[in-house]
Amino acid sequence: MPRPNLREQLMDAGLRTLHTQGFNGSAVQDITNAAKIPKGSFYNHFESKEALAMAALELFWSNGTARRALLTDVSLDPVERLRRHFQLLSTALANIKYERGCLIGNFSSEMSHNEAFRDRLAQMLSDWSNSIEICIKDADDVGRLKVKAQHKTLASFLVNAWEGAVLRTKVEQNGAALDDFEQITFLSFFS
Amino acid sequence: MPRPNLREQLMDAGLRTLHTQGFNGSAVQDITNAAKIPKGSFYNHFESKEALAMAALELFWSNGTARRALLTDVSLDPVERLRRHFQLLSTALANIKYERGCLIGNFSSEMSHNEAFRDRLAQMLSDWSNSIEICIKDADDVGRLKVKAQHKTLASFLVNAWEGAVLRTKVEQNGAALDDFEQITFLSFFS
Repeated sequence: MPRPNLREQLMDAGLRTLHTQGFNGSAVQDITNAAKIPKGSFYNHFESKEALAMAALELFWSNGTARRALLTDVSLDPVERLRRHFQLLSTALANIKYERGCLIGNFSSEMSHNEAFRDRLAQMLSDWSNSIEICIKDADDVGRLKVKAQHKTLASFLVNAWEGAVLRTKVEQNGAALDDFEQITFLSFFS
Repeated sequence: MPRPNLREQLMDAGLRTLHTQGFNGSAVQDITNAAKIPKGSFYNHFESKEALAMAALELFWSNGTARRALLTDVSLDPVERLRRHFQLLSTALANIKYERGCLIGNFSSEMSHNEAFRDRLAQMLSDWSNSIEICIKDADDVGRLKVKAQHKTLASFLVNAWEGAVLRTKVEQNGAALDDFEQITFLSFFS
């Protein structure tokens, strides 16, 4: 039976490698090298690079659980929740020197021809948008929403605008695009 | 001497292939197959896949020249220019069934580890932002700008928000994210 800690090692190394090099830019050997395990044992744990990539995407998503939970924490001011949510994401991107971007965004660009990835990515983006929509609704309820758009439309717009800003940080290798996002978002949409 | 029409055939096929499959997802053979030329003649025209990809990126960029010129056409109302600019982009994405996204966005995600690509992509995004900034300034001059942000900040924000929306269309395979972009942008920032 495969040792569970080896599977975890592979998932951690896989996430790091895929996040940095992309799916097509990462060979199975790159991942096993990063995990410091022999290439041959990869297939004891995952039946394919796709299977590992899907597991890495789930790991990436679950790493953001607390940040997303913040969005619906009614003990906090709704605009403050949203601001903190994006600030935590900004800090996470600064910590990796803006070199890797967001795995959800990267895979949206690279893996959308694959139906299983496309469906899961669409679900993640939709779940994230829904949490932001709750935050926007709560902001509207206390008179803090400045724009008369549907909550759902604005929530999707913000998720997409964020992903686009993250893409720009990869090219510019600095956080300017995230600062622009924060400034325009909190100046235009919320009081 | 290489025949110039073969070079053009390769660039067209290269753009189509790289736009659909990405850089790492496209082998030289995929490109020569798409161009219907023998693989061996590739290197008569381009010294590497990177060189062809850079030429394809330039071709993609120059295909958008007229759309960008619209942004600074002072014979048109500034808000109308901006709206038409994004509508033309939306139509172009609908024509390819939302399957390929924007090559600038795709390469921003996939090629940012490569300095030559990163520099050129940063320049393209900056040039595009500058044209939008002129449009925003002209809108402000006639009292049509609703948000009191710096023109430069809003211009970058819009370029990034657009790229993020395009990324979402790849996942959802429909134009909803572009409609959301249009609705929020023209409701919130311009009168």
